[in-house]
Amino acid sequence: MKTLHVDLGERSYPIFIGQGLLSKDLIGKYIKSKQVLVVTNETIAPLYLEQTQAMLSKFDHQTVILPDGEQYKNLDTLNLIYDALLTHKMDRSVTLVALGGGVVGDMTGFAAASYQRGVNFIQIPTTLLSQVDSSVGGKTGVNHALGKNMIGAFHQPQCVIADTDTLNTLDDKQLAAGIAEVIKYGLLGDLEFFEWLELNIEQLASRDPVALSYAIERSCQDKADIVAADERESGNRALLNLGHTFGHAIETASGYGNWLHGEAVAVGMLMAADLSLRAGDITQAEIDRIYALTKRANLPVTPPSDMTSAQFIDLMLRDKKALNGVIRLVLLKSIGRAIISDNYSRDSLDETLNRFLTTT
Amino acid sequence: MKTLHVDLGERSYPIFIGQGLLSKDLIGKYIKSKQVLVVTNETIAPLYLEQTQAMLSKFDHQTVILPDGEQYKNLDTLNLIYDALLTHKMDRSVTLVALGGGVVGDMTGFAAASYQRGVNFIQIPTTLLSQVDSSVGGKTGVNHALGKNMIGAFHQPQCVIADTDTLNTLDDKQLAAGIAEVIKYGLLGDLEFFEWLELNIEQLASRDPVALSYAIERSCQDKADIVAADERESGNRALLNLGHTFGHAIETASGYGNWLHGEAVAVGMLMAADLSLRAGDITQAEIDRIYALTKRANLPVTPPSDMTSAQFIDLMLRDKKALNGVIRLVLLKSIGRAIISDNYSRDSLDETLNRFLTTT
Repeated sequence: MKTLHVDLGERSYPIFIGQGLLSKDLIGKYIKSKQVLVVTNETIAPLYLEQTQAMLSKFDHQTVILPDGEQYKNLDTLNLIYDALLTHKMDRSVTLVALGGGVVGDMTGFAAASYQRGVNFIQIPTTLLSQVDSSVGGKTGVNHALGKNMIGAFHQPQCVIADTDTLNTLDDKQLAAGIAEVIKYGLLGDLEFFEWLELNIEQLASRDPVALSYAIERSCQDKADIVAADERESGNRALLNLGHTFGHAIETASGYGNWLHGEAVAVGMLMAADLSLRAGDITQAEIDRIYALTKRANLPVTPPSDMTSAQFIDLMLRDKKALNGVIRLVLLKSIGRAIISDNYSRDSLDETLNRFLTTT
Repeated sequence: MKTLHVDLGERSYPIFIGQGLLSKDLIGKYIKSKQVLVVTNETIAPLYLEQTQAMLSKFDHQTVILPDGEQYKNLDTLNLIYDALLTHKMDRSVTLVALGGGVVGDMTGFAAASYQRGVNFIQIPTTLLSQVDSSVGGKTGVNHALGKNMIGAFHQPQCVIADTDTLNTLDDKQLAAGIAEVIKYGLLGDLEFFEWLELNIEQLASRDPVALSYAIERSCQDKADIVAADERESGNRALLNLGHTFGHAIETASGYGNWLHGEAVAVGMLMAADLSLRAGDITQAEIDRIYALTKRANLPVTPPSDMTSAQFIDLMLRDKKALNGVIRLVLLKSIGRAIISDNYSRDSLDETLNRFLTTT
């Protein structure tokens, strides 16, 4: 087992990564309350709820099971968590445990941020995407019909338990979506890791436990370093959104749940790379390497065929990084070096959109 | 005009109190954004929206008008604010302006705390209750069908503008409800102010502007001192909940909107005083003074006649101050001195409940 520390002063917390962690008694020392509410979904409950409840046997624990899918990441589903908390008369000392992927983690985290103005929570991410991404950084929230993650809070967990055994029950599409976020860490700031991925991508896709463990640890470390330097995203933390402005537009346009987040981000990163080339930064050879790696990871490389350029622009203007009508994007200077920029021409953006929208 | 400073380090902000403030250009220097969303309700909009919009003429401002009443302080109404923000493509630099009473202030504050994980907001409270209470302290949130203020966040405004002219359009019941919270500040920690109220309560009830201004300033100062010492309510801030545990039970049991918050708190303070006497603290003579002042303020002195003792206990156990099945209450050592206590017998609590429930 590996232990990473996310360094955020009094909000610091550990991430445990390894095999078989759900059968170890890790969680007990991070729960300060008598009452515990486990939040999971209908897919994960049959697989890992029993093991989780066994870890919690000495607490007064209850469970709420949510429907599974990004399309349920909204205020109505959030209210099911509040209902459970209040029905079981849980007080402000309660600890919430998020057992599931990013959607469960984001919603449980926001419920914890807002129940009685803030209670403790613990993350047990069960997808590659949530192990490398949502478990670090304290971003919590739900979607709104008009925009992704528009309602939320910053709220840090007490600890994160990433049991790599849980990845064995992921389907291939979900696994690939997680690998997209892993590639992101290499692309945005870690050339050495990108090169490691070029050598090991097939091992990840075939779920080699040693490769997975290493990729999770390195991704979490990369993210933790960035978050520790900029918890509230006033500066470089926004680099983590590489591919996300294009990607969120794809997710919103196609309806939540039809495209996996990681799939949309994979295409978004290719679009950001294309725009970076037009802005004069990255080279064509580097773009070819990114394409090759994306394809080897079994990820899509083009947006939905029915999306229009106008739709992209409209949705991207609603992005949280847009300010006063300017779409700020994360662009690539090179593989391993990203910047936040609005220093690109509108023509270049249109060319990138046309390039991707006519190719499909 | 009086200016109070609420001292919370980098989250410090001023409160402006006085007549005619809505026609002064106070707000401009506290708005850092181009975009502004005014949130108000259908009662306040015809009265003060035009004046408020005039103050905002140099900004790109929009308005959302909510239904009026505590029964609308919920997630569904909150969503109307998010809808407006997203429909108008407002980004994370937006400033929200809450124009109305405590319900508008609490919901706007929570929308500001959670929209894009936190944006700025300004309070323009238009009721006595919100001027003396909700405008200080940063508590924001909405109700849940199973408990009041159960969903929320701590989020401080950029400034508060309390224009005492807006109190002229309050009905008498609303005014009395505000006076209940004013009395609370005297009772819980300011004997001198309680004695001032004993001399001036009729001037407040008849809306004498000088008396109102003094009462608002002194209440805000008392609250600001407590909040500055304990922003997140880990200690003495809970004293501000004098009368609130009993009061919230009344509000929840009678259906939100049927009892005004201040009315329920007035009865709650009398119940807390009664229990304090049984716990051996306050004197009967002091209780008589509290009763007399409450009646002179035209406030109710008994809970709804259909409430039962079991109902009180059940609802009070859901209170945010309850921990592990123990109801912690704010009790009175004397007029002007409150404590947080679970040091009372269950028999005494039953006696207090029976005393109030059979009197009605």
